[in-house]
Amino acid sequence: MPDATADIELLPDLAAIRAARLRIAPHVCRTPVMTCPALDARVGAKLFFKCENFQRIGAFKARGASNAVFSLPSALAARGVVTHSSGNHGAALAYAAARRSIRAYVVMPETAPRIKQDNVRSFGAEIRFCGPTAAAREAMCESVQRETGATLVHPFDNVDVIAGQGTAALELIEDVPDVDVVMAPIGGGGLLSGTAIVAKALRPGIRVLGSEPANADDAFRGFRSGRVEPVNPATTIADGLRSPVAARTLAAIRSHVDEIGLASEQGIVAAMRAVLETMKIVIEPSSAVPLACLMERTLDVTGARVGIVLSGGNVDLDRLPWQA
Amino acid sequence: MPDATADIELLPDLAAIRAARLRIAPHVCRTPVMTCPALDARVGAKLFFKCENFQRIGAFKARGASNAVFSLPSALAARGVVTHSSGNHGAALAYAAARRSIRAYVVMPETAPRIKQDNVRSFGAEIRFCGPTAAAREAMCESVQRETGATLVHPFDNVDVIAGQGTAALELIEDVPDVDVVMAPIGGGGLLSGTAIVAKALRPGIRVLGSEPANADDAFRGFRSGRVEPVNPATTIADGLRSPVAARTLAAIRSHVDEIGLASEQGIVAAMRAVLETMKIVIEPSSAVPLACLMERTLDVTGARVGIVLSGGNVDLDRLPWQA
Repeated sequence: MPDATADIELLPDLAAIRAARLRIAPHVCRTPVMTCPALDARVGAKLFFKCENFQRIGAFKARGASNAVFSLPSALAARGVVTHSSGNHGAALAYAAARRSIRAYVVMPETAPRIKQDNVRSFGAEIRFCGPTAAAREAMCESVQRETGATLVHPFDNVDVIAGQGTAALELIEDVPDVDVVMAPIGGGGLLSGTAIVAKALRPGIRVLGSEPANADDAFRGFRSGRVEPVNPATTIADGLRSPVAARTLAAIRSHVDEIGLASEQGIVAAMRAVLETMKIVIEPSSAVPLACLMERTLDVTGARVGIVLSGGNVDLDRLPWQA
Repeated sequence: MPDATADIELLPDLAAIRAARLRIAPHVCRTPVMTCPALDARVGAKLFFKCENFQRIGAFKARGASNAVFSLPSALAARGVVTHSSGNHGAALAYAAARRSIRAYVVMPETAPRIKQDNVRSFGAEIRFCGPTAAAREAMCESVQRETGATLVHPFDNVDVIAGQGTAALELIEDVPDVDVVMAPIGGGGLLSGTAIVAKALRPGIRVLGSEPANADDAFRGFRSGRVEPVNPATTIADGLRSPVAARTLAAIRSHVDEIGLASEQGIVAAMRAVLETMKIVIEPSSAVPLACLMERTLDVTGARVGIVLSGGNVDLDRLPWQA
């Protein structure tokens, strides 16, 4: 049964996500679940926010990267890991590699902001610069792999990464067993895939909702068409959600997700600001997208108990989106 | 023993603070204590942050105001309460009065920012405007008292308010019993008075440290001179800490506090920003003053376990202090 075998390898199941949780426990926080009556009143539902903005490196990505790094056999791990994300996954892989005392190589364009370079270097990772195109990035990744024998840890198109990302929802459902709905944003789809697999395995009747910026709606379109759709030419302030989904994550989403909502750019900014003002916690624009869908009523959860994964808190405080 | 009697009335003891905790329990949150390894490394101590920024109305003031409002006999309460704070205490009194379904009058200058007016009105309180001087403010307060029979609830020169503020440290020391040091900022001194009374009663060997902006150092000077000193002509970004201490709070501070540190304006901004960036929580400038003293080394807690009351999180996100 080659197809079934392929499926098992492509996506983690609940057992794999539980194993991931044990594997990464020494390296990540069990983040708190926060509530906010003022936001509940605003959206007409009871919200439970899983605060991955408080996670190591400031985002859930520490989970997936730690699971991938600590899943490697020793001989392979000794040659290091490589990735091509200048954002939270790059920092997360650098962090996880440092925890295992192995090398990490992070490929990023020469134009990557200084603060992201410094962040990756602060964990002892090595930066390899490339040109600004996807082709240049992949070529540099392959070159690092050939040169060093490092293992590629893709930001989302990786079974161990998806399993690690699913551990956030596993904890959320343990802490709030009677949630009716679980929500997560969609970038490459790793977080939503892991979330949906866990949620449907533990509570078959649960609703799982994805959310995307309208300006980066490739998963929304792919959810309907069944194909990986090209990224939107527009851009979004939710910079963590600009990448297209992979065939693997789209398959998980089409199997386990009930609906995908879209949020406007103003809606994302308003939701982010509402969280800072009323909950007094710092989240990045990508994390505000699920709440934006509720505030703009592109997803309806009226009266429900809704778990929302707040994916991260890494914002540039000099450039908050409501500033000119 | 008239003096002893006077002292008992002037300041709460541990029993009064414990009674306050029971009285206000239905109206306030038990806020979490957060830690941050990155900030620990920066100051060379183990820090425990009592997150009163997550408190109702976004500041510890909900504690003192609730205790004062719910300590009033019914007949008195029925005539309402009045205060002259346009900041967190005004909102807190409006909140507590709403919880008891009584009227609250908040006296503020006509020049008070619209957002502060709206905040107080959102709890159903009535605003009485006055001129911009202390004399005009007090005259208006007295006029409201004569007209309505409302009880004045002073922001800090009030035994029930001080008892309520002390409940934050009571919870902190319950959650982290082995702290060596407890820190709070000083505005009128209500928070530090309550904190110091609780801490020394529960743990006589504990160090209690106050902290003030160098630009609002009246408590620092009064701590040495034994007199209520005039406020500093300079101003500070820590707008919650501009008011002078009262004789009552100065007495508590001189009896129970070990040392007061001063923080520069740049230090306050840097500490506030460090908390937003590394802890991913929103605090107001006043709350950053204790950490600023540690980062600037005007107070030395090297190697100690240090509890810090983060007093509030009400900031204007359009005017963060690192913006031009």
